[in-house]
Amino acid sequence: MRKPRSHPAGNESLDSLVRLVQRVRLIAFDFDGVFTDNTVYVFEDGREAVRCHRSDGIGLSKLKRLGVDVVIVSTEANPVVMARSRKLGIECFQNANDKRGALAALLEKRGLSFQDVAFVGNDLNDLGCLQEVLLPIVVNNAHPDVLRYAKFRTEAPGGAGAVREVCDLFERLRTPASRQVSS
Amino acid sequence: MRKPRSHPAGNESLDSLVRLVQRVRLIAFDFDGVFTDNTVYVFEDGREAVRCHRSDGIGLSKLKRLGVDVVIVSTEANPVVMARSRKLGIECFQNANDKRGALAALLEKRGLSFQDVAFVGNDLNDLGCLQEVLLPIVVNNAHPDVLRYAKFRTEAPGGAGAVREVCDLFERLRTPASRQVSS
Amino acid sequence: MRKPRSHPAGNESLDSLVRLVQRVRLIAFDFDGVFTDNTVYVFEDGREAVRCHRSDGIGLSKLKRLGVDVVIVSTEANPVVMARSRKLGIECFQNANDKRGALAALLEKRGLSFQDVAFVGNDLNDLGCLQEVLLPIVVNNAHPDVLRYAKFRTEAPGGAGAVREVCDLFERLRTPASRQVSS
Amino acid sequence: MRKPRSHPAGNESLDSLVRLVQRVRLIAFDFDGVFTDNTVYVFEDGREAVRCHRSDGIGLSKLKRLGVDVVIVSTEANPVVMARSRKLGIECFQNANDKRGALAALLEKRGLSFQDVAFVGNDLNDLGCLQEVLLPIVVNNAHPDVLRYAKFRTEAPGGAGAVREVCDLFERLRTPASRQVSS
Repeated sequence: MRKPRSHPAGNESLDSLVRLVQRVRLIAFDFDGVFTDNTVYVFEDGREAVRCHRSDGIGLSKLKRLGVDVVIVSTEANPVVMARSRKLGIECFQNANDKRGALAALLEKRGLSFQDVAFVGNDLNDLGCLQEVLLPIVVNNAHPDVLRYAKFRTEAPGGAGAVREVCDLFERLRTPASRQVSS
Repeated sequence: MRKPRSHPAGNESLDSLVRLVQRVRLIAFDFDGVFTDNTVYVFEDGREAVRCHRSDGIGLSKLKRLGVDVVIVSTEANPVVMARSRKLGIECFQNANDKRGALAALLEKRGLSFQDVAFVGNDLNDLGCLQEVLLPIVVNNAHPDVLRYAKFRTEAPGGAGAVREVCDLFERLRTPASRQVSS
Repeated sequence: MRKPRSHPAGNESLDSLVRLVQRVRLIAFDFDGVFTDNTVYVFEDGREAVRCHRSDGIGLSKLKRLGVDVVIVSTEANPVVMARSRKLGIECFQNANDKRGALAALLEKRGLSFQDVAFVGNDLNDLGCLQEVLLPIVVNNAHPDVLRYAKFRTEAPGGAGAVREVCDLFERLRTPASRQVSS
Repeated sequence: MRKPRSHPAGNESLDSLVRLVQRVRLIAFDFDGVFTDNTVYVFEDGREAVRCHRSDGIGLSKLKRLGVDVVIVSTEANPVVMARSRKLGIECFQNANDKRGALAALLEKRGLSFQDVAFVGNDLNDLGCLQEVLLPIVVNNAHPDVLRYAKFRTEAPGGAGAVREVCDLFERLRTPASRQVSS
């Protein structure tokens, strides 16, 4: 098994990280700053656009093959989040001013607990989730105030391969070395 | 209290910066180059779009909680500035070819003086304001000709966290250490 | 003849690279991540846009003068790929979930074999083609898992001159030094 | 007089550069790669957008005050070039597959010669102009094949302050030190 390219943000050893990754049943992703570079394109009529990364699609297919569920939990009720999640085939929970509460409700419905979950975030409004879940992950360019809450920090910035990197990490740490085929 | 990540552009010591920040009652932001990366997307029909940073919203909420007022003072009468300021819930003064005059008029209406104000700018058309206010601030990638007029220069470039960094600075330097809660 | 600015990814010597380049009759380009920076702009109504590089046009004209054929082989059936390839005057094969199969069919129709082809890719879905063709090329910021399959890796990232760099390379390595005119 | 921030690309000394700048009566700018970062945003319906820099406007006003004429000479007949030049108030010559010929015709009409002109370009299709004019200028990230033809190379890349830098250079080298006022 290859060493994951990214280093744990805290003191997680590789062994500990492997154990955490193998227990995760659901990955919940924040949208802005994780699937995007945290910028927004603003048009004259107030409409918005965001910039995502094509490589995420291949990564999310890997998670599907591994049997890991994926959801997006986003603060804003924004059509661009819907558009992107529909394209990627991911369920999306929006308008979640209280992301922790939204995630809790979702977990109850699926018979899961926070200890089955990895959460990938980038800013203060992700803190409630990052502090509760089994495996809190932040993107490389997350706000400094949330870095310390992560057990894994991606090498890639948000919107530039961070989602793919998390998926690749799961593939590497959950696949017996003998069966690892890259495609 | 944590040390602010950014360094004063001039000789302002941290103590002096704390005193200035604590006296500010209003922050006036330039738009292009501060809320944006100073680029503009030009479409075939002449319409424009700009690129802003999602992290600014959380920062501006902090200023609201601290009781610091916020306005945008922009040279261009541009629909994208209106669109963004509406979304962020900030009052916006546009078409201000003479930004200093526009700011002066606004201050008079609110019973404030330039000595109650921090101004955040990035180019020569901000000079009139930067030279008058109590706390002149420039973004990291401001035009070289205005750098020397600033008492604080952000670490982040415009449109990539500069507004948030100013808000975080105000939170840190105005909140007694015992009450500092990040969220 | 100038030394190509880019270095072979593997152990290809310059001599070996010259021999490969001179045997190529068709260059097949992946689209996303090669013609673009692998990001996608997502709008509220689900429409997309991509960011390409103007310098590619001059490069593709060089290939035309050299008599090297060019095609785009893309996984997604996406209107933006059609729009860009039409503008550049390149034939485009889309909806190719199996890119290797699509390329094989195309080659058969033209009476060519994989050993007449250079393929330029950036991610795992290009692996089938990269492993078959005479001259597999990857862009500088290709996914780590495909780097090792390339005999040439561009210096420029995708969408920022990578296509032009490949065209310039072909011009340099196929034009007798005495006839090299830059225009 | 401050030293210009950029260094001549060739062997031009500062003295020689001052002499050249003071003789220029017209600056002709290429558009793509000079006013823009040389990328193009491609939409599903084939329409395009480009990314320009807000700081250019202040720079072009400086040239107006100095009495230096400005034109854009662009290869493509593209609505975005028209849109941007109209906004900046610059005359624009498009569809100039032969930029050198287009510039020659323009100069004749105005009673000027190539020896009255500075040309700012970035790629091979600017070579005809760069080789003829008094003061050939390239942007920092110009194609390697044209660098050697420039007597001045900007520090800023195209679309990120290069136009402004040229304007600032003209202001500095044409204004007697005693009258230099930055605004």
